[in-house]
Amino acid sequence: MSRVLGLDPGLVATGYAVLDAAAGRPAVLDRGVVETRPGRPLEQRLHLVYDAVARLLDRHAPAALALEDLYAEYRFPRTALLMAHARGVVCLAARQRGVPVLALAPAEVKRAVTANGAASKEQVQQAMRRLLDLAETPRPSHVADALALAFAGLSRLGGGLRRPSSPDGLRTAIVRAPARPDGEA
Amino acid sequence: MSRVLGLDPGLVATGYAVLDAAAGRPAVLDRGVVETRPGRPLEQRLHLVYDAVARLLDRHAPAALALEDLYAEYRFPRTALLMAHARGVVCLAARQRGVPVLALAPAEVKRAVTANGAASKEQVQQAMRRLLDLAETPRPSHVADALALAFAGLSRLGGGLRRPSSPDGLRTAIVRAPARPDGEA
Repeated sequence: MSRVLGLDPGLVATGYAVLDAAAGRPAVLDRGVVETRPGRPLEQRLHLVYDAVARLLDRHAPAALALEDLYAEYRFPRTALLMAHARGVVCLAARQRGVPVLALAPAEVKRAVTANGAASKEQVQQAMRRLLDLAETPRPSHVADALALAFAGLSRLGGGLRRPSSPDGLRTAIVRAPARPDGEA
Repeated sequence: MSRVLGLDPGLVATGYAVLDAAAGRPAVLDRGVVETRPGRPLEQRLHLVYDAVARLLDRHAPAALALEDLYAEYRFPRTALLMAHARGVVCLAARQRGVPVLALAPAEVKRAVTANGAASKEQVQQAMRRLLDLAETPRPSHVADALALAFAGLSRLGGGLRRPSSPDGLRTAIVRAPARPDGEA
């Protein structure tokens, strides 16, 4: 099966995208952003990210989960530390379901979608729109990144995917933390 | 109930300690280290840490889980990022069980056990030995840190705990990743 869940984890916003290449051409099965509220406790926000990713894994049963590999350096160390908390629960959700995690270098992802390992964020967004025949440039950038990760993950699993085409009947979903009492999860 | 699980999470080694102050004097119910093998995939190691912490939470049903708060800066950014992955799954395990997470500043922990917010690691180890009437200085330092976190957590929950005393009939447990096939979890 050639189906990959691409994830761009973050505590504030986690972009996700599910691509399926069963017919040899990637189709977008799902995409969106999981958002959590900054004022809530860290553990509550992590639980929300975990639950959302667990549901995506259960619903789509991907062959792999594609993440960006860790960098050597981050411009915003505290943001990177919080991202790593979210990345940890995402990896856990995959492992609990036996879904392999592909950690892809940024250059590999960019090369897979633009043939240029040093492409800009805008070039990646434009490439995803073109490669997947999307009606609009995927936004926010977390979703574009998740699409690119899923695409690069498919390339890694199944060999070259150069000319995909799929109708984009999906709107980008925004999953927000439900407004429920703090004590509940 | 005055029982706190102190945790010093890390990908390589996670120190843990359970202190109970039911009689007004903290007793060490459990302590040890969860170790994972460096060669294994990140998601497998996180799963091991998560499972071990989930078992500790289920076994001891603590009133709180005490962790060190995040620093502003880390000397080893990559190690800190991996620690944050482990910290993420630890927070998740607590949240899933409704156990509140106390993120304690290093100075608060040191002050709770030595009355000096700038105490050295050795001073903390000696203080824990004295405060808990341990037969030996707690080692490795991950265990001493977990004990200090649990102690500071009890102080936070229940007010001042200055002169505890408890026999130390426990050996420090080392939980190692079981040698099972890579595909299993």
